[in-house]
Amino acid sequence: MVDCTIRDGGLMNNWHFSDDFVKSVYKACVEAGIDYMEIGYKSSDKIFSRQENGPWKFCDEKDVRRIVGENKTGTKISVMVDIGRIELDTIPPKPKSVIDMIRVATYVHQMDKAIYMAEQCMEKGYETTINLMAVSKVNERDLDEALHDVAKSKVPVFYVVDSFGSMYCEEIELITKKYMELLKGKTIGIHAHNNMQLAFSNTITAIIHGCNMMDATLLGLGRGAGNCPIELLIAFLKNPKYRLLPLFQAIQDNILPMQKEIDWGYHIPYLVTGAMNEHPKEAMQWMDSDRKNDFVGFLMHMHDTFSLLE
Amino acid sequence: MVDCTIRDGGLMNNWHFSDDFVKSVYKACVEAGIDYMEIGYKSSDKIFSRQENGPWKFCDEKDVRRIVGENKTGTKISVMVDIGRIELDTIPPKPKSVIDMIRVATYVHQMDKAIYMAEQCMEKGYETTINLMAVSKVNERDLDEALHDVAKSKVPVFYVVDSFGSMYCEEIELITKKYMELLKGKTIGIHAHNNMQLAFSNTITAIIHGCNMMDATLLGLGRGAGNCPIELLIAFLKNPKYRLLPLFQAIQDNILPMQKEIDWGYHIPYLVTGAMNEHPKEAMQWMDSDRKNDFVGFLMHMHDTFSLLE
Repeated sequence: MVDCTIRDGGLMNNWHFSDDFVKSVYKACVEAGIDYMEIGYKSSDKIFSRQENGPWKFCDEKDVRRIVGENKTGTKISVMVDIGRIELDTIPPKPKSVIDMIRVATYVHQMDKAIYMAEQCMEKGYETTINLMAVSKVNERDLDEALHDVAKSKVPVFYVVDSFGSMYCEEIELITKKYMELLKGKTIGIHAHNNMQLAFSNTITAIIHGCNMMDATLLGLGRGAGNCPIELLIAFLKNPKYRLLPLFQAIQDNILPMQKEIDWGYHIPYLVTGAMNEHPKEAMQWMDSDRKNDFVGFLMHMHDTFSLLE
Repeated sequence: MVDCTIRDGGLMNNWHFSDDFVKSVYKACVEAGIDYMEIGYKSSDKIFSRQENGPWKFCDEKDVRRIVGENKTGTKISVMVDIGRIELDTIPPKPKSVIDMIRVATYVHQMDKAIYMAEQCMEKGYETTINLMAVSKVNERDLDEALHDVAKSKVPVFYVVDSFGSMYCEEIELITKKYMELLKGKTIGIHAHNNMQLAFSNTITAIIHGCNMMDATLLGLGRGAGNCPIELLIAFLKNPKYRLLPLFQAIQDNILPMQKEIDWGYHIPYLVTGAMNEHPKEAMQWMDSDRKNDFVGFLMHMHDTFSLLE
């Protein structure tokens, strides 16, 4: 189980979370027995502005340690890297870092770079995964080729990622089965978005078909419609190693109040981009505008935009 | 497709909807091509107070006609009746009514009465269904016996009802298959609740396994966590006989503003009663109290209450 509250939620506020907020998520993860907490992206400040983005876009060692200290807990710390947005030599060897896992997010055409990056991180001593984004847009031949390369790599974990929240259970089942079959011996993960209120059910479907590493966030906080709510997943799993109460505590103390600032969750514009298998960015812009609740207008805008494009 | 916005939503405000609101839902259903609109309960005013409850708890002919006129549209009008809460002789023969369908809601121990009531309504000229509530609490032997009786009856439609929003996809699949097998030749329906964000996905699961009559509501408006959002279902079905735009229009004009008055949807107390397979009434009371957002308190309250009871 990977809590992505800060990393994916930060896509909604450019990672401008207070230390107290990040600490409360960390405390909840530790007390609830969550296996990994993904505390942010590690990225280059030559590419992203430190003024525009909070510390969890960069995850400098000193910032992470300010939250987790030496992290003598059962919860490991994860960060995500994007291909081309981080210099490999800025990642210290694992003995010098309190970070345990580096997850490499990639599009299909960058798969060779992603494999190289992940294997280099393994060399440095980290756990790694590769998260292939936007699989709903990838054609079968490119996907098979990419999976062929991943199969030959040392990378032990590969993710089903429904970036646009556009996948129904049949597609999740199909993709999960394909990954399980072509990547025998590797762990398969699932990262779902909630545009069509399917993040939790798609995560269950993936589990049924063999996924063994699940991403989720407190109250579903995450980009656009958000992610699979971790409290639902923990209540479903009924695994005594996890505890629900610390998650409820963090939700009522810290996550729920944040709904006043950040408008994640099920909203009609996110349903529209999900159902159209498009990136949520148009919906996010619409939700930020004064036409936020003009759903008819958004549907027509999207039809105009994409019928012109395609 | 049955829109239950007014009938199930009324459980949140004792059916105190303005005529304009009900008309807007009706207009949306007609323009969107929805097959049935369930406009409320038909019940006896000897049992329920007309002061406490709005007109859609009673669905007097004159009230229904005030909204739908002679209803010369493609959308049929449905009402729900509860066993023991309506006198059969107050239901006029169909030629005198603009109502097309009467759905009989029942618990398993009242099944003989439900069958009698439904068959009497058929005699009067109405379409009918039987909706067996709270199936998640029914033991297999009682269920098989009830289904045996339903199979022998003339009633053409029987519903899978997840009253508590407690069922996962495996249970929906199991129950749907059982109904399909034991009630050959009848239509099977699905009515889901959204306590665990599974109403839409459970509806899809039921469709995959043969359900052919789906309940849903605008923006999921309904008791507690609400129902399957009709806009998601229409977007999923991609059936050209349905139109999304009129639903969006009604949602932005009428349903979304109602969120200020009625607090339906995914909230942690509803997750708790769903996961515990309990009626949402405790959660609804909690949501009405000043401890609404004390989720830890509610979880402990529920554990105390039900470990004492069971």
